[in-house]
Amino acid sequence: MAATVIDGKAFAAKVRGQVAEHVARLKEEHGITPGLAVVLVGEDPASQVYVRSKGKSTVEVGMNSFEHKLDADTPEADLLALIDQLNNDPKVHGILVQLPLPKHLDEDLVINSIAPEKDVDGFHISNVGLLGTGQKSMVPCTPLGCLMMLREHHGSLSGLDAVVIGRSNIVGKPMAQLLLGDSCTVTIAHSRTKDLPDVVRRADIVVAAVGRPEMVPGDWIKEGATVIDVGINRIDAPEKGEGKTRLVGDVDYASAAERAGAITPVPGGVGPMTIACLLANTVTAACRASNLAEPEGLTA
Amino acid sequence: MAATVIDGKAFAAKVRGQVAEHVARLKEEHGITPGLAVVLVGEDPASQVYVRSKGKSTVEVGMNSFEHKLDADTPEADLLALIDQLNNDPKVHGILVQLPLPKHLDEDLVINSIAPEKDVDGFHISNVGLLGTGQKSMVPCTPLGCLMMLREHHGSLSGLDAVVIGRSNIVGKPMAQLLLGDSCTVTIAHSRTKDLPDVVRRADIVVAAVGRPEMVPGDWIKEGATVIDVGINRIDAPEKGEGKTRLVGDVDYASAAERAGAITPVPGGVGPMTIACLLANTVTAACRASNLAEPEGLTA
Repeated sequence: MAATVIDGKAFAAKVRGQVAEHVARLKEEHGITPGLAVVLVGEDPASQVYVRSKGKSTVEVGMNSFEHKLDADTPEADLLALIDQLNNDPKVHGILVQLPLPKHLDEDLVINSIAPEKDVDGFHISNVGLLGTGQKSMVPCTPLGCLMMLREHHGSLSGLDAVVIGRSNIVGKPMAQLLLGDSCTVTIAHSRTKDLPDVVRRADIVVAAVGRPEMVPGDWIKEGATVIDVGINRIDAPEKGEGKTRLVGDVDYASAAERAGAITPVPGGVGPMTIACLLANTVTAACRASNLAEPEGLTA
Repeated sequence: MAATVIDGKAFAAKVRGQVAEHVARLKEEHGITPGLAVVLVGEDPASQVYVRSKGKSTVEVGMNSFEHKLDADTPEADLLALIDQLNNDPKVHGILVQLPLPKHLDEDLVINSIAPEKDVDGFHISNVGLLGTGQKSMVPCTPLGCLMMLREHHGSLSGLDAVVIGRSNIVGKPMAQLLLGDSCTVTIAHSRTKDLPDVVRRADIVVAAVGRPEMVPGDWIKEGATVIDVGINRIDAPEKGEGKTRLVGDVDYASAAERAGAITPVPGGVGPMTIACLLANTVTAACRASNLAEPEGLTA
């Protein structure tokens, strides 16, 4: 059986379309234009690409994008002052500080200085705590995107056996909370797990979020399982020519696709969903800020 | 094989002894007497018993106990004002608001008004978030007690398969976080879990925290597994005479003890550890408040 390919690019486009509709409605009915502020400290090339891409997507769905670029040696106090200003700016509904920060800045302190209701990355400890107790929160974008794809494919997730491989604060742990919130039986596996193949083999849903190229072979996948591959790893691709590289996930796609019922490709699976969910979180934050009903289907 | 009985009463006494030593040391070396404030609103009989018991234990280990009893119809603003006063009182290192609160009071609001560093119950969303991201936090007392017993019995928990039955915010979810922090492969099961017997059978560690009398029969337990029974359920005991009752756990003790390697009894297992951990959290909070090293073995 060939697996259904979960097309993250198409699904992300659909989510962005929904966001755009909500933005248009907020403008028309309430005179509100959702705004996302992105703060970049320093000149990390990858971060610059991400920030540019986020700004472009924000404008495309009709929202305001506010970019703040600070020197790599910006004192912490200046960064905190900027965040304070954004916290108090009613035109700004979402604030994202691009990580990683230069080493002289305390990432936890900076993230926790963002007003939790504007923390569209969902990294503030209050949001972690709200998610961890089943309350309304801002949910980290990547796991939210995975959840949306799983709900779209399965309808209800209740009672399904889900295995999350990886226990990062950004993906693995919040993913487990979200799956638990949707009533999966959730197992969190990681580098210390004794018999990972056995753990993965019993899962109806496998979310791989480790960052190790193709570490999950197809024969670990239960026949018919849904595989969500969060990994984006660049590896050498000599077959494409000397010095060439290609992107692969944490799952060996070719062999896993032979057994899975559904699978996300890399690239074009989870990746495109992350920015779409950032936009979704921003429109959700804008609605909450004005005590308006949240857009359906765009939150956990 | 007969299971080792994990004697919670004896272990709790040991923990209280360690706490008492730290309290004596804090007094002698630093002139600090750790203080625990307990707030009781209304006259719920069970809550009154708990509060009295907590106060007595607090004094027994040499700490200051501050009891605040408020009328059942106390306005929320008055309760919040009291908490604010306790937050700012340097003699108070731990604050516990006895739950449940009368219906006119917003429990989440009240709990989240406690200064997180004094929140010895570990229920403040900041503490949930800190625990959920592997940072230093105040850890809820019951799961902390379970963790201490597991560490005492196993030494390292790394790589063990742990199953937590129940996903409450007070026990199940923080227990899962603690086991994950100690590098178990953690599965959270609950009422929607499809094949609970099968899930429990693969566990090296079973933590049952559901509140359903004897719902886990012995034949679900893997040979040699460690069973931590958090349930305390009162059931009819006609064999003791008409109208008599007895306490049982969530696990069928007799049959489970035949297969388990180690098991906590009910009563006398997890129960006594909860107050001991409350005292441990208070002494930890007192140390942190003065930037002193935390007592070893009394925190997660």
